[in-house]
Amino acid sequence: MTQKIPAIDAAFLHMESHDTPMHVAGLQIFSLPAGAGPDYLRRLVAELKAPRELSAPWNLRLRPSALSRLTPAWEEDHDVDLDYHVRHLALPQPGGERELGVLVSRLHSHRLNRRRPLWECHVIEGLENHRFALYTKIHHALVDGVTTMRLLMQALAENPHGPLVPPWAAQARMPPPAPTAPRALQRRAATAAGALQGLARMAGQAGREAGSLVAPYAAPRSPLNGRVTGQRRLATQQFEMARIKRLARAAEATLNDVVLALCSAALRRFLKDANTLPAQPLVAAIPVSMRPPGDATDGNAVSLMLARLGTDIADPAARLAAIREGTQRAKDHLRTMTTDAQALYSSLFAAPFALQTLAGLTGRTRPFFNVTVSNVPGPAGRLFLGDARLEAMYPVSIAAHGQALNITCTSYAGSLNFGLLGCRDSLPHLQRLAVYMADAMAELEEQFGLPADIPRAAA
Amino acid sequence: MTQKIPAIDAAFLHMESHDTPMHVAGLQIFSLPAGAGPDYLRRLVAELKAPRELSAPWNLRLRPSALSRLTPAWEEDHDVDLDYHVRHLALPQPGGERELGVLVSRLHSHRLNRRRPLWECHVIEGLENHRFALYTKIHHALVDGVTTMRLLMQALAENPHGPLVPPWAAQARMPPPAPTAPRALQRRAATAAGALQGLARMAGQAGREAGSLVAPYAAPRSPLNGRVTGQRRLATQQFEMARIKRLARAAEATLNDVVLALCSAALRRFLKDANTLPAQPLVAAIPVSMRPPGDATDGNAVSLMLARLGTDIADPAARLAAIREGTQRAKDHLRTMTTDAQALYSSLFAAPFALQTLAGLTGRTRPFFNVTVSNVPGPAGRLFLGDARLEAMYPVSIAAHGQALNITCTSYAGSLNFGLLGCRDSLPHLQRLAVYMADAMAELEEQFGLPADIPRAAA
Repeated sequence: MTQKIPAIDAAFLHMESHDTPMHVAGLQIFSLPAGAGPDYLRRLVAELKAPRELSAPWNLRLRPSALSRLTPAWEEDHDVDLDYHVRHLALPQPGGERELGVLVSRLHSHRLNRRRPLWECHVIEGLENHRFALYTKIHHALVDGVTTMRLLMQALAENPHGPLVPPWAAQARMPPPAPTAPRALQRRAATAAGALQGLARMAGQAGREAGSLVAPYAAPRSPLNGRVTGQRRLATQQFEMARIKRLARAAEATLNDVVLALCSAALRRFLKDANTLPAQPLVAAIPVSMRPPGDATDGNAVSLMLARLGTDIADPAARLAAIREGTQRAKDHLRTMTTDAQALYSSLFAAPFALQTLAGLTGRTRPFFNVTVSNVPGPAGRLFLGDARLEAMYPVSIAAHGQALNITCTSYAGSLNFGLLGCRDSLPHLQRLAVYMADAMAELEEQFGLPADIPRAAA
Repeated sequence: MTQKIPAIDAAFLHMESHDTPMHVAGLQIFSLPAGAGPDYLRRLVAELKAPRELSAPWNLRLRPSALSRLTPAWEEDHDVDLDYHVRHLALPQPGGERELGVLVSRLHSHRLNRRRPLWECHVIEGLENHRFALYTKIHHALVDGVTTMRLLMQALAENPHGPLVPPWAAQARMPPPAPTAPRALQRRAATAAGALQGLARMAGQAGREAGSLVAPYAAPRSPLNGRVTGQRRLATQQFEMARIKRLARAAEATLNDVVLALCSAALRRFLKDANTLPAQPLVAAIPVSMRPPGDATDGNAVSLMLARLGTDIADPAARLAAIREGTQRAKDHLRTMTTDAQALYSSLFAAPFALQTLAGLTGRTRPFFNVTVSNVPGPAGRLFLGDARLEAMYPVSIAAHGQALNITCTSYAGSLNFGLLGCRDSLPHLQRLAVYMADAMAELEEQFGLPADIPRAAA
């Protein structure tokens, strides 16, 4: 059985190069259960390799064919070599977040092998404080980042007493096979007709737009938007959700505004360090989930919103206020649109970006936006892999020419987990962004007179 | 300063693909000095990253240029990012030879980054019995396997009391810049004129050749000679030199005949396991160092000798006798030739192989030989990296279409160290070859009535 790969998915195969690997990943941190012996992880690896029947997308490989570059198709691999896909690694001493970051960054820099199903799972031993990690990567031509997180989460159990079911096992709880809303949107956005209609509509509105509602092409040039090389760097940061919500209440802002303010403060300081902070504020692209009045369609309504990050403003509270005002106006604007109009509005950013990427132009022209900041809702309750408790789950996204940094966060059991993924060469010392986010949190709390009574999470 | 890359070296850039990485490596095993603390390796890594000035070839990168595929050239990189090139890894529990083999095999499967100097050094922590390992890979376009071993060995000290000098440090003891004899031979062999002259001479001799003197094209088809994928598997084996010499004396054979007999026995059993042992004996290509009578030229005289491995013979002693007879006749034949004739004789194998590789034909036609078995002499005395003693040094070579397995051994301080490097997909369970070599040794010793009084080295 083969299935033709839709053009929007195949684009991730065509766009891929040594400099721009096109896989996404999830980094999961687990606690070793009390009393786990020295062979606990070896047995875990054996269990992960045990399934004989695999479910899609884990069993899909590219059909080998001379035409495969022109008309790529998936075919089922009935004899997946799990010794190849599931790997057992370890961290050098002291096995801290730094060593983990270095290893995962390196793993994320390697392209997947196109002769095999396009995924790998790395079980990482030696993480300090009695923990271990799973880094699972999968090609974006198979699933997007949101679906990857969902696949990994849905394979976990709500208590530590059941059997371990690998995400790729045929009996694993599977998400519905229908395309996810963001992907459906991408498909629509990728049609040239949609993009052109959107452009026409946008041109008509241009005269009426003003203030904080950011139109495309308004983003400044920055080191975030040049060409990238193939080396990636991952930085992670975890906050307690209660802290972020408390700050949002105090600042009369939304949780997402606080997220943007933390990113903004960190980016401002990071770029100032290198004397590369643009005079104009950076522009973030933010996928937003929303449902306009009267909309009764099924599924999520997801659109893309552009907002200035206020990186030109020195005062943290004033910066947060500017972000809040900008996102409010952008959302009001989106809300007045029909679902179709929202999709077209979003297509303005998505389609030209994809076209430019294919033409090899991105990173050489003025950016449409400087950085994508996504917030993907995750599960509220504790989850377990066998008897090991999940402590954190970080999204690991894609960097591309013109988009050297991606920030994605996801919620899990009372925490908000940030994965910052960038190009190691064009954005050196990327891990400082994570440290700066923690500093920005403390600074904002101080400005709003919030006591530091909620213990801070480790960087 | 740029320097044009000679065509024979550039060929390794042109031939390289996802399936056929073209780097060689050395795997060095060290003992941790008594009293080494938990941060010993972190400090070692820092020392390896310390040099600010690097010597060739470690500071050479490909000149970036649109023409670089046609006329590749080296240029000096005056700001090599040693954080990129020197990496700190660890083995999962229990940190045995198996875990080391899996990790190094995976590292050897990744191509080097062509934007940077074409080498990497991986410091590997967590090797059981108080040891650690260094895996250093370098592109064959820069240096061949023999030179790589020499570069790594010459950076070591003869006692544990001096400072640690990384091989790439400008002050490291360097080999002479002149091309090595094997490489000079390759250059000569690669000229079309040389190959054609050699072919003509060979055709004239064909009628006179008989018996064990193997002519090209006589090798049988085997799984060792198909197409390869990009995944590599390394197996290692160490023997005490005294054991091999004792067996050679008892069998009235040379040390190299014993080496070939061990390879032959292991290959016979390995191929029989999979029901793929050819009826005709496998043919090995053996680089030999020799100096014909009356030759007063400078440098080493290195030639390539083909010998049947007797893999069709069940009895170990009879197999060794057949190998001994075959290599003796091949050497007698080579000795009657002038140095020029030897080079041309060798070019018969080397040049068509290179041409076929470039044409993408290797692995699809009848092989000239089945496997290369090289014995590279190494240092006799103990060596040290800082205060850590070198225990073993394994060559890690190249597998290519048509040559899915390479066996290279090198001597060090009373031991003979085998690196068996093959394609993981076309030669599954390659590590069994190393186990079978140890079994073959014991079997031959028994046949020749040698007591097992010399303790056997670990597999």
